[in-house]
Amino acid sequence: MPREQIFDEAEYERRVARTKDRLREADLDAIVVADPANMNYLTGYDGWSFYVHQAVVVTLERDEPVWIGRGMDGNGARATTHLSEASIRTYSDDHVHSPHDLHPMDYVAGVLEELGVDDGRIGLEMDAAYFTAKSYTRLQQNLPDAAFEDATLLVGWVRIKKSDQELAYMREAARISEHAMQAGLDAIEEGIPEYEAAAAIYDALITGTEAYGGDYPSIVPLMPSGEHTGTPHLTWTDRPFEDGDPVIIELSGCRHRYHSPLARTTFVGDPPAELVETAEVVVEGLEAALDAAEPGVTCEAVESAWRETIAQYGLEKEDRIGYSMGLGYPPDWGEHTASLRPGDDTVLEEDMTFHMIPGIWTDELGVEISETFHVTATGAETLAEFPRQLFTT
Amino acid sequence: MPREQIFDEAEYERRVARTKDRLREADLDAIVVADPANMNYLTGYDGWSFYVHQAVVVTLERDEPVWIGRGMDGNGARATTHLSEASIRTYSDDHVHSPHDLHPMDYVAGVLEELGVDDGRIGLEMDAAYFTAKSYTRLQQNLPDAAFEDATLLVGWVRIKKSDQELAYMREAARISEHAMQAGLDAIEEGIPEYEAAAAIYDALITGTEAYGGDYPSIVPLMPSGEHTGTPHLTWTDRPFEDGDPVIIELSGCRHRYHSPLARTTFVGDPPAELVETAEVVVEGLEAALDAAEPGVTCEAVESAWRETIAQYGLEKEDRIGYSMGLGYPPDWGEHTASLRPGDDTVLEEDMTFHMIPGIWTDELGVEISETFHVTATGAETLAEFPRQLFTT
Repeated sequence: MPREQIFDEAEYERRVARTKDRLREADLDAIVVADPANMNYLTGYDGWSFYVHQAVVVTLERDEPVWIGRGMDGNGARATTHLSEASIRTYSDDHVHSPHDLHPMDYVAGVLEELGVDDGRIGLEMDAAYFTAKSYTRLQQNLPDAAFEDATLLVGWVRIKKSDQELAYMREAARISEHAMQAGLDAIEEGIPEYEAAAAIYDALITGTEAYGGDYPSIVPLMPSGEHTGTPHLTWTDRPFEDGDPVIIELSGCRHRYHSPLARTTFVGDPPAELVETAEVVVEGLEAALDAAEPGVTCEAVESAWRETIAQYGLEKEDRIGYSMGLGYPPDWGEHTASLRPGDDTVLEEDMTFHMIPGIWTDELGVEISETFHVTATGAETLAEFPRQLFTT
Repeated sequence: MPREQIFDEAEYERRVARTKDRLREADLDAIVVADPANMNYLTGYDGWSFYVHQAVVVTLERDEPVWIGRGMDGNGARATTHLSEASIRTYSDDHVHSPHDLHPMDYVAGVLEELGVDDGRIGLEMDAAYFTAKSYTRLQQNLPDAAFEDATLLVGWVRIKKSDQELAYMREAARISEHAMQAGLDAIEEGIPEYEAAAAIYDALITGTEAYGGDYPSIVPLMPSGEHTGTPHLTWTDRPFEDGDPVIIELSGCRHRYHSPLARTTFVGDPPAELVETAEVVVEGLEAALDAAEPGVTCEAVESAWRETIAQYGLEKEDRIGYSMGLGYPPDWGEHTASLRPGDDTVLEEDMTFHMIPGIWTDELGVEISETFHVTATGAETLAEFPRQLFTT
C-alpha cells in the first residue's frame, strides 16, 4: 500500500496514457525507462536505490507499467507506488556488482520477453544518467531480434507540462527555497567558514516550513565565492568568507521530488561599484526575459530578450540562460528538453516550468540572479517571492 | 591554482602510474574515465558538474591525464587540480542537452584523436553510472578504427588500497559519522516528524567537528522506520515517529569526498523482546565477521563468519553484507569491486577499506548495525567508535 498519496491513481494513469501516445507516434512497442525521475513520474516510485540498475517498462499492450528493481527494493515499490503485485518484478542480489557474468539488464531482458516485445521496437533512454553503455550492450545481446531506438527524452516531453498538483508541490518547494536563501544570506559573513553557511541552508531545506518538511534537493546548495564565482559548480570548503568576497548562492527547496530553484548573489563587505552595476544589468535582463515569456513564444525569443538587454551595456554571455525542470533526482533537477538559448525553437505552452538563471562574469567577479517560473495563460508567474538584487552582509 | 592541497602532487602521480600499470596489463593504450570518483582520484577534480558529460583520459604515452569538461567548468578544474593548462580541455555549451546533433563525446573523440590513440585499444567504463549508452555509441561512431574494451573497474581496483592520507580523511569522516549518528538518535522520539531527524543529522554532517567541516555525502541519510524498516532505501517523509517504531539510521560523514558509513537501529518506546534478541544476534555476527577480517583472508570467508554465526540462531540472509568503499559522489560511496559475499574470492590486503552492513529482517522488524573497517597488517580496525547495540528513545 502506498505510504502517502502524493498523486491520485488517475494522475499516474494519465501520465502513462500520454506516454503511450508518444510511443505510438514514434512507432514503438515499448520503452525501458531508466531515469529515476521518469520512473517516479510513471509509477510514483521513490527511493535512493538508483545506484543499482532499475527500470520501468511501458508497453502499448499492458495497462500498468512494470517496475523492475533489486530484490531488497521491492518493498519500496510496494510502499510508494499503486502498482499491482504482478507489476513489481525484482532481481536477485547476485546481479549487483556481480563477480559473475550477470547483469540486472539480463533480468530486464527476460521481462521484455515475457511481455512479448522482444522482437518489437523498443525505446531506450540512451543518454540518461544511470542507463549505462553496458546496460545497452546487455539488452542487445539478450534480445537480438529487438529493434532499439533512442527515446531519451520521450517521457521528458510528457513531463514538461505540469498538472495542478505538480504545480502545488513546486510552490511548496518555492516556500522552502525562500527560507533557505534567507538562511544562507543570514549566515554569510566575514570569518564564517563556507560549510557553516551550507549547514544553515541545509537546515532550512530539510526543516521546510511550519506546515511540511523538505526533501533532499537533486543538486546540493552551490556557493561559489571569492575568486571562484567564475566556477559555478564548486561546492563548499572550510575556507572562511573574507571581506571583499562575492558569493553566489544557488539552491532549491524540494517537495515530493519537485524543485523550485533560486539563485542570488551577495557580497561580504562594501561591494565595488562595478558589481553593483553588473547586478542591476542582470536584474534588468532577467526581468526583460520574464516579460517576454508567454504561451506561443519560442525559447530562443525569451533568451533573446535577455541578450538584447545586456548588449545595451556592451555585455554578452554565451551559455544558455535556463531550462525546463521540476521533478528530479541527483545529479540534476533539469528535464533536458527545452532550453532558453539561441537555436531552441520550442514554443512555450501553458503550465510549462523553467528555471531562468542568467549570470554575468567578468575576470574577477560574477553575478547570478535567477527565478523559477510557470508559464500561465497570459505570461510568466515566478514561484518564489524574493527580492531581486545584490545583497550585502 | 589548486584552492587547497587535498593531496600532494606526488600522490596523484603515483595513482596515475598505477593506472598505467593496469593499462599495460590489460593491453590498453588509453582509458576514458567517466566515473566522477575516478576522475577525482586521478586529478583531484571536485565539482557538482557530473550532470553533464565529462571525462579524464589517461594514455600510456602522456605524463598527465587530460581533463575534459564543459566550458564553464574549466575554471573548476583549474581550481581543484594540479593539471597544466594543456591538460584542461573544454567543450562549448551547445554540446549540453543539445537540440543539434552534437554530443560531448564528439569532443572527447577529437581529443583522443589528438592524443594519437584513435586507432588504439581504449578502455571504457562501460557500467559506470554517468557513462551512458549514447556516450558509447558516439565514441564508436567518431572513432571507427578504435578497439573499445570494458574497463569499468580498472581504476576501482587501484583505489581499493588506501594511502595514509586517504585513511586520515576517512578517519575524519568517521568522527563526523559519530556526531551525526548521535544527533539522529537524540532527535528521534514519538511525535517528531522524520524530516526533523533528517535535518538534525544533516546539520551534524555539514557542521562537522570543531576542527573541520563536512562535505555532502554520496548517499543521503536513510531512515527506514516503522513498517518500512524492510525497505532500506526509502528516504524521510513528514510522518511523525510513533511508539512502537523501529528506525534504522544509515549515514556517512564525508571529508574531501571520503566516507565512513555507519548504521545503527533504534526503537521508539519499549522494544519487543524479539527485536532485542535479533539485535544481539546481529552484533554477534558482525563481530565474528570483523574478527575474521585480516590480510590473506577472502571476502567470502569474512561473510561466512557472519553466516555461520546467525545460522546458530536459525537465521539466514541472502544479500551481501559489505563492499569496498571510500571516495565517492552521488549516487554511491561504494567502489563496486570487492563485496563481502559468497563467491567473491578477493583476498583482503592491508589498507583496503570496507563498509560491513549486515542486517536481519523478519516480516515486521528489521535491524541493521554496521561498521566501516580498515584492513591493518594484522586484522580489522573500525574507523568509528560508536556503541554496537539496539538503541531506544
